[in-house]
Amino acid sequence: MRRSEFSIEEQQEIDEFLQEMSFGYLGTYGEDGWPHITPLNYTYQNGYIYFHGSKKGAKMDEILASHKVSFAVAKEFAIIPSYFSDPRQACPATAYFKSVHIRGFAERVEDLHEKALALSGLMEKLQPEGGYAPITPDDPKYVGELKAVSVVKISIDSLTAKFKFGQNLKGGRRTKVMEGLMERGGAEDAAIVELMKKYCPMHQE
Amino acid sequence: MRRSEFSIEEQQEIDEFLQEMSFGYLGTYGEDGWPHITPLNYTYQNGYIYFHGSKKGAKMDEILASHKVSFAVAKEFAIIPSYFSDPRQACPATAYFKSVHIRGFAERVEDLHEKALALSGLMEKLQPEGGYAPITPDDPKYVGELKAVSVVKISIDSLTAKFKFGQNLKGGRRTKVMEGLMERGGAEDAAIVELMKKYCPMHQE
Repeated sequence: MRRSEFSIEEQQEIDEFLQEMSFGYLGTYGEDGWPHITPLNYTYQNGYIYFHGSKKGAKMDEILASHKVSFAVAKEFAIIPSYFSDPRQACPATAYFKSVHIRGFAERVEDLHEKALALSGLMEKLQPEGGYAPITPDDPKYVGELKAVSVVKISIDSLTAKFKFGQNLKGGRRTKVMEGLMERGGAEDAAIVELMKKYCPMHQE
Repeated sequence: MRRSEFSIEEQQEIDEFLQEMSFGYLGTYGEDGWPHITPLNYTYQNGYIYFHGSKKGAKMDEILASHKVSFAVAKEFAIIPSYFSDPRQACPATAYFKSVHIRGFAERVEDLHEKALALSGLMEKLQPEGGYAPITPDDPKYVGELKAVSVVKISIDSLTAKFKFGQNLKGGRRTKVMEGLMERGGAEDAAIVELMKKYCPMHQE
């Protein structure tokens, strides 16, 4: 996050990105001295990250023991080949991506209504077409499972985002990369050019 | 990794997965008491994970200070809706994925030939079509940049993998999920059925 030209603080866009992505990476401290990373499906609701898992198991014990956790969500949008902007040197090869990094505090959710809301949010994201009975502790067919599942909530202490779409490029190189994308004409390449324009305000005229 | 039915130790498949994926998530210890996660492009060569970055900056300082690092690579293959196997309850909704988790030791690569090999491997993965001069310290146009860039190598201490394709399903539910996938008929769904068969040996007859 050192290079300030990449930073983006537009909370709405970050929220949308967190809501559209289906899984992220949880970072916890391990007793063995290594940080641990666990990919998991999540939901982002009311400013919290929620995920669920088995009540038993090393992951859950570790999450609740370490308390301070990280959560990262990233998506690679395009590989940018070096020859878009340099006919010889490999160095300009790069990837354009969005990534969000959260530091927060993890705690187990005990309230069945909050558990149900979190799991409902997860279902709405991953199964928007429906096809299941609404999740609520008032439904006797769900109450046992709601008690049995572990739901964890991350309260966000800090959130940083990096949306990298060529903001660091000097004008001539930026134009070459845009031309290269248009010429390559992949399914997403025109959209990438628009993202480059969006995140490089000096280039919007 | 608690549920042993998900574990896969077929090193060749893990190697192929690590070679085909373009980016992973590095976990390091932060001085602020939180584990940090950084998504980055990498190459897997001769049993090492290599990545590159700027010589300066918090990430590089932290990586080299923490020494013990984690590296995770994961891919979500399919969202499995609950109604494939249960007409009412949301609980069977899940995702099928491959993930690999490495614990290792990070060190800076100083040898220019090893740096060049690592960066060449990265280029071969991300830009297989070529379009650049081979990276070697014998090329005067690369030697300055090879000296300037930081290349980090992770020596693998342990590697675990989880390939989740319904191995935990009882026979009846497994059949329903396979039927649901075939009926849905998405671009990858037939391939997912094959992966389910591959990773559930009792189901191969």
